[in-house]
Amino acid sequence: MKIAIDAMGGDHAPKEVVIGAQKAIEHFPDIEITLVGNETLIRPYITNDERLSIIHTEQVIEATDEPVRAVRRKKEASMVLMANEVSEGRADACISAGNTGALMAAGLFIVGRIDGIDRPALAPTLPTIDGKGFVLLDVGANVDARPEHLLQYALMGAAYAEKVRGISRPRIGLLNVGTEDQKGNELAKKAFQLMQQTSLNFVGNVEARDLLEGVADVVVIDGFTGNVALKTIEGTAIAVFSMLKSALTSNVVSKMAALALKPQLMQLKKKMDYAEYGGAALFGLRAPVIKAHGSSDAHAIFHAVRQAREMVANDVVQTVKQSVAEIKQ
Amino acid sequence: MKIAIDAMGGDHAPKEVVIGAQKAIEHFPDIEITLVGNETLIRPYITNDERLSIIHTEQVIEATDEPVRAVRRKKEASMVLMANEVSEGRADACISAGNTGALMAAGLFIVGRIDGIDRPALAPTLPTIDGKGFVLLDVGANVDARPEHLLQYALMGAAYAEKVRGISRPRIGLLNVGTEDQKGNELAKKAFQLMQQTSLNFVGNVEARDLLEGVADVVVIDGFTGNVALKTIEGTAIAVFSMLKSALTSNVVSKMAALALKPQLMQLKKKMDYAEYGGAALFGLRAPVIKAHGSSDAHAIFHAVRQAREMVANDVVQTVKQSVAEIKQ
Repeated sequence: MKIAIDAMGGDHAPKEVVIGAQKAIEHFPDIEITLVGNETLIRPYITNDERLSIIHTEQVIEATDEPVRAVRRKKEASMVLMANEVSEGRADACISAGNTGALMAAGLFIVGRIDGIDRPALAPTLPTIDGKGFVLLDVGANVDARPEHLLQYALMGAAYAEKVRGISRPRIGLLNVGTEDQKGNELAKKAFQLMQQTSLNFVGNVEARDLLEGVADVVVIDGFTGNVALKTIEGTAIAVFSMLKSALTSNVVSKMAALALKPQLMQLKKKMDYAEYGGAALFGLRAPVIKAHGSSDAHAIFHAVRQAREMVANDVVQTVKQSVAEIKQ
Repeated sequence: MKIAIDAMGGDHAPKEVVIGAQKAIEHFPDIEITLVGNETLIRPYITNDERLSIIHTEQVIEATDEPVRAVRRKKEASMVLMANEVSEGRADACISAGNTGALMAAGLFIVGRIDGIDRPALAPTLPTIDGKGFVLLDVGANVDARPEHLLQYALMGAAYAEKVRGISRPRIGLLNVGTEDQKGNELAKKAFQLMQQTSLNFVGNVEARDLLEGVADVVVIDGFTGNVALKTIEGTAIAVFSMLKSALTSNVVSKMAALALKPQLMQLKKKMDYAEYGGAALFGLRAPVIKAHGSSDAHAIFHAVRQAREMVANDVVQTVKQSVAEIKQ
């Protein structure tokens, strides 16, 4: 199994990307990795060449580049060459921590869609209180979704939860403004009806306030609302921790108490850290494409490789193809 | 100034509603309050009749009632009679902690819309890290919004922020999936263009992760997305506090440290408590209608009365009428 990685994507590239990739090679004896990027900058962090190759290029897609144009024009960019490895059959999956929009464009235009999937979806796995996590999709690949897109998200999310996360008959929820069957905007109401007609384990509408309680294993919604939900979770967690920090350092007594609590607080932060769940997978493409967080460290890259490896090993793409074919019948 | 209150609405009605109303009467010498509900249940909590009257009724709209049907059929319900007080000119504003959907229906059908406002919007004021708060609308009055509705929300939010919250030239943001001008779904893109053409202090697109940082004084979006954002903030804050609680009670040392930190943690919780900002105002109606939180205690009811009083005293409805007229020219 071969995984192509954009070594130049993300805030801590190439250093953390290269270190994370090497860690993954050591840990998983069945994988090979191709790093794509500036060899002069990559080489210093490589300690072992085993099962590791480099494709040299000096072109990079920046975070500020307009995604579609960048993918079309920067034909030698590390992200584009990475996607080429997959589309031309030299790699089974690919990973980038770079420009999210550009990766979605590269996925769509270079890797290509699965037949029967109209729109790819971006799907992170988010933490829940019980530590099990849930898959949320779409968080922004497609901001103007139709009901049938949401149904396709449900099929793809179910395949992923079952094959990669090992959840049998995963619970599929529709993010909505209330739990009653008739709730929602036109999109949600129609998507609800479509999902009810499938053999999915559809648990109906779920509310945003119950997401972190683990109310479903897979939660589907349009990319606009999903993006807002994802960023609201991030923003609220950061805000609460920031307020907690100022509260805990407001005087000498609280500072001492906070010091005593440090192990517990660190553990809590770790629980909220979704790097452990890997990156956000782009579902609906002919091969696994993983968007690692822009701030990914080696640890996050390692988990993104693990995730890509599991998606390939368990043939999630094939499962999605079958589900789509079954629905069409 | 007279304020009508549904004494039977909310989890702690009528007790907390009555106590909160009395507290408000004592605090604000310029208001009279009419409590609507079962006099036998209300009376025991009344200590002073001054500027307080009761309209007796035994019918109540339950939390589980289908909103529109309940308002149409339960003609003697406390919430319906409360709205009648406003529509028939005997009260200047009204407050209920009961069924949100029913209150929206009562507002729309009984109190009535302002000319030029197509859809009312539900607008809570939410906490920010700096303690200043922001107004979010719509959080669910209208789940299928058009661009011109979002423009109307901006006008109404601006009037409220200026007149009641005392913010001159309030910053108006559009909740979106990115801060760049061209971002968003069709709705957001069109609403962006409309808002840019006004004299509002429109600061452009804002992201959900920056909401609690106080990135704008008023944030507008459709009721579906706004509802998800609101409930995600609530759910995430609750989840983080719940995880914090288990972390802080995991062993003897942490329990002792947590005890020392109790004042700081309580202060933090208070900061996140949006009862202080009043209830969610229903904007776009001919008189102020306030939806107090279902779990409102006397303290929250007191603040809802304060808020209704300020909306009447500063004539927010008239300001909205003028803004709408200016835009139409």
